[in-house]
Amino acid sequence: MGDARRYHALPSPFPMKRGGALHGARVAYETWGRLNDARDNAVLILTGLSPSAHAASSADDPSPGWWEAMIGPGKPIDTDRWYVVCVNSLGSDKGSTGPASIDPATGQPYRLRFPALSLEDVANAAWSLAHEGLGIGRLACLIGCSMGGMSALAYLLQHPGSAGAHISVNTAPQAQPFAIAIRSLQREAIRLDPQWDHGNYDIPARPGGKYPEAGMSIARKLGVITYRSAMEWKGRFARIRLDSEHRDDEPFGYEFEVERYLQAHAQRFVRSFDPNCYLYLSRASDWFDVAGYGDGDVHAGLRRIQLERALVLGAGTDILFPLEQQEQIAQGLRAGGAEVDFIAMDSPQGHDAFLVDIAHYGPAIGAFMATLAGRNEPR
Amino acid sequence: MGDARRYHALPSPFPMKRGGALHGARVAYETWGRLNDARDNAVLILTGLSPSAHAASSADDPSPGWWEAMIGPGKPIDTDRWYVVCVNSLGSDKGSTGPASIDPATGQPYRLRFPALSLEDVANAAWSLAHEGLGIGRLACLIGCSMGGMSALAYLLQHPGSAGAHISVNTAPQAQPFAIAIRSLQREAIRLDPQWDHGNYDIPARPGGKYPEAGMSIARKLGVITYRSAMEWKGRFARIRLDSEHRDDEPFGYEFEVERYLQAHAQRFVRSFDPNCYLYLSRASDWFDVAGYGDGDVHAGLRRIQLERALVLGAGTDILFPLEQQEQIAQGLRAGGAEVDFIAMDSPQGHDAFLVDIAHYGPAIGAFMATLAGRNEPR
Repeated sequence: MGDARRYHALPSPFPMKRGGALHGARVAYETWGRLNDARDNAVLILTGLSPSAHAASSADDPSPGWWEAMIGPGKPIDTDRWYVVCVNSLGSDKGSTGPASIDPATGQPYRLRFPALSLEDVANAAWSLAHEGLGIGRLACLIGCSMGGMSALAYLLQHPGSAGAHISVNTAPQAQPFAIAIRSLQREAIRLDPQWDHGNYDIPARPGGKYPEAGMSIARKLGVITYRSAMEWKGRFARIRLDSEHRDDEPFGYEFEVERYLQAHAQRFVRSFDPNCYLYLSRASDWFDVAGYGDGDVHAGLRRIQLERALVLGAGTDILFPLEQQEQIAQGLRAGGAEVDFIAMDSPQGHDAFLVDIAHYGPAIGAFMATLAGRNEPR
Repeated sequence: MGDARRYHALPSPFPMKRGGALHGARVAYETWGRLNDARDNAVLILTGLSPSAHAASSADDPSPGWWEAMIGPGKPIDTDRWYVVCVNSLGSDKGSTGPASIDPATGQPYRLRFPALSLEDVANAAWSLAHEGLGIGRLACLIGCSMGGMSALAYLLQHPGSAGAHISVNTAPQAQPFAIAIRSLQREAIRLDPQWDHGNYDIPARPGGKYPEAGMSIARKLGVITYRSAMEWKGRFARIRLDSEHRDDEPFGYEFEVERYLQAHAQRFVRSFDPNCYLYLSRASDWFDVAGYGDGDVHAGLRRIQLERALVLGAGTDILFPLEQQEQIAQGLRAGGAEVDFIAMDSPQGHDAFLVDIAHYGPAIGAFMATLAGRNEPR
């Protein structure tokens, strides 16, 4: 890792929506491009549950970011034109304060003493970075992907007028019961792992140390299963068997290529993500509900959001955030007065399409960003 | 439980497809109705992974069966007309010989010493019951639901001419990678539970005894999630919260009604199903592949099946056995010379629709059975 990562100190105390406050908390972020003198070319990106702020490479950190193909000079989010900021969610463990951070009151990691986390808190921390940290009065565009799309809605609802435009990517205004069931089961796999031990495993993780590896592995595999689509896998893995070298000698061990793929994903994740942070962010995703801003009605909540322009993207193969939920966002934002483009992507990759189907998501986002640039530029 | 359950002793030794043989093995079954003198009114039902042979109530066992609404006098599978037999799968623990049974060679439960189980073995055991046990030369109809639908294809492929008609319900000619991934993860949840201990938990299960409860609970919940559909749950659970009485005080405990629903399902399953049996039957479902009977081609394999009539049913909301797979079965059986009705059910309940959407599945099966009855009856 290079040193592209910067930190923004949150106001202290930083009050949390469901009670309690953080002291001496911070969020990690990275930036690309240059903030112009008018401070009106800022694009803020809010991430899904697990990514860090390293959305793209830079001179300071040349390693590829999680949205590498999307951000850079001449890319859909063109850093020659835009000042792009990506923030690690409050509650995560990629540099921002979260359950794995040291509680200044005790000198020990917070673990489960971290206050209840909501996506509103994630949004407020991101807003503090943009507004108070970087001095951006109004974002040119707020982008949110997956869980970050829900955080973005929380951002816009809590800070009216804080963005002129918004790109909503593969997200939802509230979790439906299927998504709640999946996330609940992911949390349960971690909670039932004796090595989770009510959050009292080794922090930081170390090889051979106490860590709920089985639970995190199951949670991650279930995540990957629901992030992709049966259609994509049918073409990609079919019923391909592992060669004898890669087979597993354990009883009921892996035999199919798709099992090895899941195992590889799990191995990259385990010990690289803090289990308590995962639990806090996962629960926050279930809790979030735009209906809470509209007297129990999602549409009424969305209608309160003030934007000039919005682009709402979704994939028909997404089983976690089904397309009807992006349609709902588009309709709500439109009813609130925004000019909204809604695009149902024909991507086979399911929820993760925004990360991998750059051939479709890239041009859609690039075209939208270009129209924003056109409006901002002197004529 | 009443005493409706009967047992058929399998030939000893009973050779297994992947090697080894069982000695002194048996399958449990129940029957409804009366076998006529011509012995041509028999209907055999092969079940999904977990059900017992108790498909419907009877005088001997008045408790409701797993397909209670479908089987009985005047019901879609009319026991006034048909002699109905349901068999518990070989490898299960509901009376048939499986990994939880006593190995006569050691006097101890087989556990993982049970030979590798395939659906071909399940089918052969069922065929032995019908042909050798009950003296039925040719079934009027072979019915298979879910995993039982795959067992039925194995039955028909291995025993040509053994059935005149076939009803294929929410099944597949082979597992696709999404289904393999789900089942692999279910098996992994059990395998990773320290109380599984390579199969060395307490048999039979007893309260407080050694049993991989966490693993079985996760496996069952994941099963239930994939047996139903997001659409059904959206209408049924929405974001309904548990009242304070039913909430869970554990950290990250249950808050939503959908979580309680899953927990109730898991509680009914845990300690009532043997984990090793689950692993054997789950793996057999992944292994089964009609393509193996068609030089690597599913259609060619299906085409080898000889039937007069077939009814193939599927639900568009089934994510585990997608509708295209039932279409594939219908096309293959048709190419083999059968007169085939294919019905894509408009059921919101997903894979489990055949168990709960009797309003749609009942008339479809009833009408098909009535045409069979018409053909068989003297004119």
